[in-house]
Amino acid sequence: MTRSITLLGATGSIGASTLDLVRRNPDDWQVEALTANCSAKELAALAREFGAKLAVVGDESCLAELREALSGSGIEAAGGADALCEAARRPVDMTVAAIVGCAGLAPTMAAVERGGTIALANKEALVSAGSVMTLAVAKHGATLLPTDSEHNAIFQCLAGGKIEDVARITLTASGGPFRTWERSAIEAATPEQAVAHPNWSMGAKISVDSATMMNKGLEYIEAHHLFPVGLDRLKIVVHPQSVIHSMVEYRDRSTLAQLGPSDMRVPIASCLAWPARMETPLEPLDLARIGELTFQAPDEELFPATRIAREAIEAGGAAPAILNAANEIAVEAFLAGHIGFSRITAVAEETLARYDAPPPDNLENILAVDSEARKRAREALETAPLV
Amino acid sequence: MTRSITLLGATGSIGASTLDLVRRNPDDWQVEALTANCSAKELAALAREFGAKLAVVGDESCLAELREALSGSGIEAAGGADALCEAARRPVDMTVAAIVGCAGLAPTMAAVERGGTIALANKEALVSAGSVMTLAVAKHGATLLPTDSEHNAIFQCLAGGKIEDVARITLTASGGPFRTWERSAIEAATPEQAVAHPNWSMGAKISVDSATMMNKGLEYIEAHHLFPVGLDRLKIVVHPQSVIHSMVEYRDRSTLAQLGPSDMRVPIASCLAWPARMETPLEPLDLARIGELTFQAPDEELFPATRIAREAIEAGGAAPAILNAANEIAVEAFLAGHIGFSRITAVAEETLARYDAPPPDNLENILAVDSEARKRAREALETAPLV
Repeated sequence: MTRSITLLGATGSIGASTLDLVRRNPDDWQVEALTANCSAKELAALAREFGAKLAVVGDESCLAELREALSGSGIEAAGGADALCEAARRPVDMTVAAIVGCAGLAPTMAAVERGGTIALANKEALVSAGSVMTLAVAKHGATLLPTDSEHNAIFQCLAGGKIEDVARITLTASGGPFRTWERSAIEAATPEQAVAHPNWSMGAKISVDSATMMNKGLEYIEAHHLFPVGLDRLKIVVHPQSVIHSMVEYRDRSTLAQLGPSDMRVPIASCLAWPARMETPLEPLDLARIGELTFQAPDEELFPATRIAREAIEAGGAAPAILNAANEIAVEAFLAGHIGFSRITAVAEETLARYDAPPPDNLENILAVDSEARKRAREALETAPLV
Repeated sequence: MTRSITLLGATGSIGASTLDLVRRNPDDWQVEALTANCSAKELAALAREFGAKLAVVGDESCLAELREALSGSGIEAAGGADALCEAARRPVDMTVAAIVGCAGLAPTMAAVERGGTIALANKEALVSAGSVMTLAVAKHGATLLPTDSEHNAIFQCLAGGKIEDVARITLTASGGPFRTWERSAIEAATPEQAVAHPNWSMGAKISVDSATMMNKGLEYIEAHHLFPVGLDRLKIVVHPQSVIHSMVEYRDRSTLAQLGPSDMRVPIASCLAWPARMETPLEPLDLARIGELTFQAPDEELFPATRIAREAIEAGGAAPAILNAANEIAVEAFLAGHIGFSRITAVAEETLARYDAPPPDNLENILAVDSEARKRAREALETAPLV
């Protein structure tokens, strides 16, 4: 049975993995819309290859290039933030929400408000929008399929189970590239060192988040919204091999875990085929070859991001959106060489401490909080001492 | 809601674990029947404690003692093989089939033929009866809930999934107490050494089976009947910590694993409460404290039992029943000091090679094969050289 699909964020890492799976199963999918921020030529090439009906660039200044690259194809072209939301509103069987950062929030919400089935790879959307998004999901009867490897693991471990029977959810964390480093070396870490993730090949922003463990902090907030078991039942364990992607312990002390290769095609395939399964071109798990899986408690002295994230979600309201925005600014500053590695989480925490916004109750408020938090984070960058 | 339960094998290890859970939830259960082989006083005490309506000893010579121990209680007493089957035929919401060895076959089949829900802890029943039992389950609409920790793990990992989507099922094996021993030391192993299992506290027979790895071989056969994915999709991995109890890999390369303490109350609770969950009095899983989980391929040169079992199920027909019977006789002889440790699997393999019975198609045939295989195994013990 052919199903229609829209891919918000077609030219990123998740987009490439999704299209790899669609390419292997051409009869199963009819591509409705593909979007990118500004990679017009690449987007046009994908739209032609997959026979998309619509291609959208979020940055309107790239629309002319897109139109030119699509000329003669019959594929519709559009540009700008509203066009992204309009693309997300078109009726399809499956929307993959894979726009990185807060830019994905409005299009993801548009897909939610259509009541569709959404493979959610844009964790910042859920971190910033939180209950605004989960309430919209409930109101519009949308289905969220978590695509982050950890949340997808939890989702799979909950299949056939009930959330009331859950005693504990444990997110696994690789610990990032600096897990075994001394504090002085971590403080002197360069962007090149921070983006060299030991297990996953990812974009620069998420790789830095993994090095600070803010990625796990944001996932912690995301998990809290997706799987409302309460913060005292939501834990993190460091598992450097990233073979177990997360776990659910039931009240009888049965723990279900999802294991697999560090390849996003596995959780994406799980969403695309849900509730069935589809083939992926990956090798079987060979634990005898892997030999050992190790585990340790997180070190929140050395990597305070998970503590900061937990405090943000405990505070509730605007705090997670502020944390997410401040972290994006701080990571940008680190990648540009403006601040040291340890300043990233410090800037996030300082921005949280200095900005007390009322709880946002709609998308407009969330975007306003996000914008103001970015401004405050930039101020923190300028006024605070560089480490 | 109170449900009725019959426990076949109340005085063994599985029986004690089951009754511990029933004792903790007295309002949830009404005990219909409890059975034992010959522990009349213990059985009577349990029947009184749990307010059972019926107590049965399989060995009729113990019936007088049971009657005396139950006098004045109003609890019905019965004895003999037929009485066990009659107890199993009484309508209840849940039957726990926990009689060790081939003695449990007929009562378990009686419960199956009633079309009931059966928590199956008697692996020899499924090994010996194989397709006779699975066909009876289908014909009578019975529900088998696997209670062996490995099979229960697989059952949990399949919840929400479809067997057609399974790429591989992996049984984990502790490797037993001799996993790291030299061949010469294994050959000289004593019964005391063989029953000292590193992770599980179990009866002598199953502990010896664990030391030879015949336990895993029998579980392999059991898994083949319970989860018919084909032998090429059924694997074994040695995992000394016994934290992961088994795994299911789906065709998208997602692997689901069930983890938990080495305590049979967890899989039993999973069966008793299925498809819901119930509390058990066990500690949460603490992987940071456990630190590491290790894995290695089985060494079938040193521990041939899993190879022999795989060959028996490949041969099909009567072979698994012959293997199971010969192994029981060989383990008895080892525990009695009559043969060395390495002779156990050798006797099983020799009996398999020397006895070519036609495929049994009913319970009577299976029991005849079982009986003849025991005779042949005893002959092999007498005629073959002791190692």
